[in-house]
Amino acid sequence: MAAIGRFQKGEDIFYAKVVDGELYRLRGDVFGSPSFDKKPTPFKGLRTLIPVVPSKIIAVGLNYADHARETGKPLPKEPLIWFKATTSLIPDGSKIEIPFPNHRTDFEAEMAIVIGRRVRNVTPAAAARYIFGYTSAQDVSDRTIQNAESQWARAKSFDTFTPLGPYVETKIDPHDLTIQLFQNGQLRQNSNTSQLIFNCFQLVSFISTNITLLPGDIILTGTPSGVGPIESGDRLEVRIQGLAPLVNTVK
Amino acid sequence: MAAIGRFQKGEDIFYAKVVDGELYRLRGDVFGSPSFDKKPTPFKGLRTLIPVVPSKIIAVGLNYADHARETGKPLPKEPLIWFKATTSLIPDGSKIEIPFPNHRTDFEAEMAIVIGRRVRNVTPAAAARYIFGYTSAQDVSDRTIQNAESQWARAKSFDTFTPLGPYVETKIDPHDLTIQLFQNGQLRQNSNTSQLIFNCFQLVSFISTNITLLPGDIILTGTPSGVGPIESGDRLEVRIQGLAPLVNTVK
Repeated sequence: MAAIGRFQKGEDIFYAKVVDGELYRLRGDVFGSPSFDKKPTPFKGLRTLIPVVPSKIIAVGLNYADHARETGKPLPKEPLIWFKATTSLIPDGSKIEIPFPNHRTDFEAEMAIVIGRRVRNVTPAAAARYIFGYTSAQDVSDRTIQNAESQWARAKSFDTFTPLGPYVETKIDPHDLTIQLFQNGQLRQNSNTSQLIFNCFQLVSFISTNITLLPGDIILTGTPSGVGPIESGDRLEVRIQGLAPLVNTVK
Repeated sequence: MAAIGRFQKGEDIFYAKVVDGELYRLRGDVFGSPSFDKKPTPFKGLRTLIPVVPSKIIAVGLNYADHARETGKPLPKEPLIWFKATTSLIPDGSKIEIPFPNHRTDFEAEMAIVIGRRVRNVTPAAAARYIFGYTSAQDVSDRTIQNAESQWARAKSFDTFTPLGPYVETKIDPHDLTIQLFQNGQLRQNSNTSQLIFNCFQLVSFISTNITLLPGDIILTGTPSGVGPIESGDRLEVRIQGLAPLVNTVK
């Protein structure tokens, strides 16, 4: 496989491989051993959906040293996790809505891990076998609420607060990729996944400790420094090396 | 309707109404306008499942004044929420597993709200229309991890940490019910849902503020005072007035 997306035309929802701008429809179980049509399906009239349907979204905090420093919080000794509501997901091209216009609401570019096989208590060395691939995401955050409440889940779970996609890249080394966020064409976040405090395999291993991960589950690996506020009309683009860009506007 | 459960026999999974120890199989959409078989289905050979399949579990912290006092934390001015992994759910009769035997792991009896209709931004006055019913639950907590980490989600999301059921009671006033937890027959928690700081309608309204709730979603309304540690071999029983008891043992 390579870049796998999920698409809709009318009532028809399907997965497809995206190669050189052409779509090859997937047949069978996306997490099993699917086959692909030999003939491309026309892109025209298709909606791009979130690339997988997760049972849960696990967010990881302060996982880039530079971002931990900008928040003034100490570096975590173990991954710090919480869950985001799956109802906060939106696909590439959809609009982020600011729920409280008088609050500060921030962009946060993140690389997302997509789980491919049910797993529990896996070692870091074996974790790669349970990963389906990687995609781009944002962990949009109502900073006013996040700073007011001890638990961060609500501030990060409003509808539209988790842009994800457009595709899942199944053949990529996740640990040396530039990760950038552009706001209206201006570079705001600029780091590399080599700067992750806990890498993808360590995260899957840690999170799977007595918590079962299911195919399609999403792990947001944390955001680098440079987070900042969004405004109505903004165009936000997450660019991770080797992945298709994730573009969302703010309503 | 009245008490609705979910059951399995072989490959067959179905909902049924439970009346005087008899099961009447449900036909159609449990959240729509289902009908029920006139003839009962034998209980024999059936497994009781979790009564609904939620997209998310929302937990509410410190929502009984007596429990807030015992933790030494100030009373919240707004509901304090976070999400638990849906993979932590187990049905009535299943075993709770203690993941870290050297940690303190606590029982927490809670009344659970089950959402019946998709809802967003509903007022407290209109919230009841979106509630399917009420059931019993536990929010089992690894207190050692909860005290060590700023985010509580992980300490409360280990597999088996959310016993739920056995049935959803669809015709009950939720705001004047005794709620008790018995550990090996000893009364440990003993309160009344009239003591909730934020009642069920206020909780649904608050949580639905810019967060879409879906049919089957679960809101754990908080635990009263008296929480305490569990041990291997314990028998834990949540008894909420008007609901069938929820019984789980500790592996």
